[in-house]
Amino acid sequence: MAEILDGKATAAGIRAEVAEGVAELVERGLRPRLDVVLVGDDPASATYVRMKERDCAEVGIDSRVHRLDAETPQGEISALVEESNADPGISGFFIQLPLPKGLDATPLVSAIDPSKDVDGLSPLSAGRLAVGLPSLLPCTPHGVIQLLRRSGVEMEGREAVVVGRSNLVGKPLAQLLLRENATVTVCHSRTRDLAAATRRAEILVVAAGRREFVGAEHVGEGAVVVDVGIHGREGGGLVGDVRFEEVEPISSMISPVPGGVGPMTRAMLLYNTLQAAQAQADGSSLG
Amino acid sequence: MAEILDGKATAAGIRAEVAEGVAELVERGLRPRLDVVLVGDDPASATYVRMKERDCAEVGIDSRVHRLDAETPQGEISALVEESNADPGISGFFIQLPLPKGLDATPLVSAIDPSKDVDGLSPLSAGRLAVGLPSLLPCTPHGVIQLLRRSGVEMEGREAVVVGRSNLVGKPLAQLLLRENATVTVCHSRTRDLAAATRRAEILVVAAGRREFVGAEHVGEGAVVVDVGIHGREGGGLVGDVRFEEVEPISSMISPVPGGVGPMTRAMLLYNTLQAAQAQADGSSLG
Ligand SMILES: NC(=O)c1ccc[n+]([C@@H]2O[C@H](COP(=O)([O-])OP(=O)(O)OC[C@H]3O[C@@H](n4cnc5c(N)ncnc54)[C@H](OP(=O)(O)O)[C@@H]3O)[C@@H](O)[C@H]2O)c1
Ligand SMILES: NC(=O)c1ccc[n+]([C@@H]2O[C@H](COP(=O)([O-])OP(=O)(O)OC[C@H]3O[C@@H](n4cnc5c(N)ncnc54)[C@H](OP(=O)(O)O)[C@@H]3O)[C@@H](O)[C@H]2O)c1
Repeated sequence: MAEILDGKATAAGIRAEVAEGVAELVERGLRPRLDVVLVGDDPASATYVRMKERDCAEVGIDSRVHRLDAETPQGEISALVEESNADPGISGFFIQLPLPKGLDATPLVSAIDPSKDVDGLSPLSAGRLAVGLPSLLPCTPHGVIQLLRRSGVEMEGREAVVVGRSNLVGKPLAQLLLRENATVTVCHSRTRDLAAATRRAEILVVAAGRREFVGAEHVGEGAVVVDVGIHGREGGGLVGDVRFEEVEPISSMISPVPGGVGPMTRAMLLYNTLQAAQAQADGSSLG
Repeated sequence: MAEILDGKATAAGIRAEVAEGVAELVERGLRPRLDVVLVGDDPASATYVRMKERDCAEVGIDSRVHRLDAETPQGEISALVEESNADPGISGFFIQLPLPKGLDATPLVSAIDPSKDVDGLSPLSAGRLAVGLPSLLPCTPHGVIQLLRRSGVEMEGREAVVVGRSNLVGKPLAQLLLRENATVTVCHSRTRDLAAATRRAEILVVAAGRREFVGAEHVGEGAVVVDVGIHGREGGGLVGDVRFEEVEPISSMISPVPGGVGPMTRAMLLYNTLQAAQAQADGSSLG
């Protein structure tokens, strides 16, 4: 029987810590504030943004949503980014992705001041992470690391394998595992023998975006398995990239979907907002 | 008998291509120019800078060295970086490292405009590489990739193992191998069973900075082995991180020291300077 990597409980612990940190800043008259730039009317994006607002409210972070028309010109969003960078009342902000067709996210995200880049996705934040400078960390990979660390999983010197190399998850996660002194392998769609590579993993993180595609043949006895995937299930509910029923008996620890990485991702956004606010209050550097 | 990955010949080919590209720009009245900031009087640094000047002269790149006293205040170097960023006559520039004690390289390197960052070592250049945006690539890892590519080594889908995770070599090399669609493992001093990890490599790149420490026990039959290490030999001459005599019979291809990665690194600086000059001439973006 594998131990469950309980993202829900771990995230609750992080939210409680964030709430404490927020309360301290509020006492100093410095309530953290998270701004969201939401362009267009994608229903999934609207839902995510509402969830994030609720999360903020729970821990005492002020939040504002800038709702912009899908037809908003690039230059106007660009100007909003500059204003948000300059506004000392805003601790951090992000642009909810994806943007409507016709808008180019890259220059907008690249223009976010790294000290306010609470999604941690700008090229400069990615580079600061890569070279080992302090930075705000992308929420999902950072959530994975926190889940492992707070569940007592030793990473140093262990074989970690990441399936997936997106800018959102796989690549920053590889950097973070390396920083934890794991020996890190990155696999992707061009990997020839995926099962051979993943079976070597003592820590296996799957972020391939393919419904239940990792099974018993991919997992070595006693591995710690983290499932980043999220897919809606017909008739409701969620499943991940891993066939949980099949992999659970082989693994020593495994994260479920839902209740694994998902809540951790949400908690890390709050964590980043607090961290940004604290750095601004103390004059320390995140970029 | 392994085939020799001939860095000397490959670098000569690159220099010839660069010379052609330079000649085209010169015809348009746009001679590329590389500036070097050399602080203090470290003899090794002075030697490197002289070599780089000679390399530039050979391919028709103009070069200038800013020789500054070891006591130069940080702010003065900072101002020189800003001037060099702004000067349209300078295609690219770099600060020769290490800097004398008392100077902090990080903010200086971070301030280099990525479109002129011919060493490719600023956090923003590292981040642009990490997220897949066009950028100037660090010379040694890019030299390794070019050596492999121009020697006909297929990287896609193959198991590549990098020993070392420095910002200068190991980490950017891992990014570049990933971009070539290899399955990439990064090992370092905390890796538990190094030989087990490296024996899996179809492409093994060693950048550990330890004299002749990789031997037969680390290398799988038929591997392609690239030795990044450079160490002076007593009585003159150079050796690498790999015990060449021992590894050569096992490997299918191997880079020697000297004559392997060293000349490639030098050639890539010229390549980057040309690339920067071309991008500036064409108004395309490297940052
Ligand atoms: N829990 C959360 O909070 C959270 C947050 C973000 C994302 N997610 C979920 O995590 C998953 C991954 O997200 P993402 O944004 O990283 O996805 P993505 O951008 O689609 O990247 C998927 C990666 O997996 C690789 N891949 C695809 N098929 C593969 C295969 N058969 N074998 C090996 N590798 C394969 C791809 O390789 P190539 O690069 O070669 O194409 C790519 O690098 C999705 O299910 C997403 O919904 C969850
Ligand atoms: N040919 C060229 O043009 C060129 C250019 C640059 C460098 N070099 C040479 O390349 C070598 C590496 O340079 P660098 O700047 O990357 O060196 P570095 O900054 O010293 O990094 C060495 C890396 O190797 C790892 N390492 C050290 N001992 C190890 C061991 N026993 N097992 C596994 N990994 C080990 C270290 O791990 P930790 O991170 O855990 O400490 C570190 O990541 C040096 O010999 C240098 O002279 C050559």
